[in-house]
Amino acid sequence: MLPEPIKKFIEIFSTLPSIGTRQATRLAFKLISSGRAKIDETAKAVDDLRYLKTCANCFFVHQNRDNLCDICRDSNRRQNIIAIVEKETDLISLERTKKFKGRYLVLGELSKTGVLESIQKLRLNHLKDWIKKQGGQAEEIIIAINPTTFGDLNASMIAKELSSFAKKITRLGRGIPTGGEIEFADEETLGQALERRI
Amino acid sequence: MLPEPIKKFIEIFSTLPSIGTRQATRLAFKLISSGRAKIDETAKAVDDLRYLKTCANCFFVHQNRDNLCDICRDSNRRQNIIAIVEKETDLISLERTKKFKGRYLVLGELSKTGVLESIQKLRLNHLKDWIKKQGGQAEEIIIAINPTTFGDLNASMIAKELSSFAKKITRLGRGIPTGGEIEFADEETLGQALERRI
Repeated sequence: MLPEPIKKFIEIFSTLPSIGTRQATRLAFKLISSGRAKIDETAKAVDDLRYLKTCANCFFVHQNRDNLCDICRDSNRRQNIIAIVEKETDLISLERTKKFKGRYLVLGELSKTGVLESIQKLRLNHLKDWIKKQGGQAEEIIIAINPTTFGDLNASMIAKELSSFAKKITRLGRGIPTGGEIEFADEETLGQALERRI
Repeated sequence: MLPEPIKKFIEIFSTLPSIGTRQATRLAFKLISSGRAKIDETAKAVDDLRYLKTCANCFFVHQNRDNLCDICRDSNRRQNIIAIVEKETDLISLERTKKFKGRYLVLGELSKTGVLESIQKLRLNHLKDWIKKQGGQAEEIIIAINPTTFGDLNASMIAKELSSFAKKITRLGRGIPTGGEIEFADEETLGQALERRI
């Protein structure tokens, strides 16, 4: 009953994160009813993503002529304090705090197998090589990976691998989120909050 | 900090229904990391929506050479039983039941002002003209508008306007949804379920 372009749209959009068939359908009709100009603009917005490059240093996206992203080019940032994140969106969240003045290494989403993928190994080796060239030890490496059971496992694996490459290897603090309630915190979180009391 | 194409993508996608800034950001990075072929395919899926036409009879989308959608062309469907819906997605939901063998009139989303927009008046007049040409009275008009306070208001307004154009004007049944629990039904729903007991 649905015309081919709508079926195709739904098929493609429902493979994207947290978009189901229903939302994809609603999106299609919303776009159609918004008219040709809106369709053009939206298609172009998708298409223009092709022009993005990956930073040769930290693997975040950029559009600069040389191979470095804005963060890695910024001489006001301390290049030898490195936060290792899984995803670009994690980097964005950390940037929003305006409290981190180092740079990043984007590792890519960790698989649930507990083994690093070859691209992730390459990126870690790339960091090691960079640190070697800079004198052998970074000031600090912050492993900013989600504090899940699975994330913890990966974090300690990475920490071990990088142990000789930084004066300090840290992870993000743990405890009750600001605005959270003790009554509703799970045991694990509350335990961590107690151990790391300030 | 974000390159222009990503900012633009987020700006455009976050205006779409139930996509916020966060989800738009996640979508952008997902597409970028899926590579150029996926970006192409997605941009094309959006762009191809431009080829859709609107049925001259019921205003649903189609891609046929003449001006009628598949439903309006279908000689197995009773053209003089008409369900009036707000949105294309409502039509799709009704089609999924496989229980309706008439045809539709897509009215477009009703504004919250309680007044029909000019395009909606045009569509209703179009239906009236069609019914006149067919002999003056449709078998049945089902006003399939959401049973909200506001939808009810619009429905009775439309019912009044069409009263002389159909032998029967109906609305969808009301009561407890299948699988629903009496304990958790709101008073209004339960009242309706009682009044319309079967």
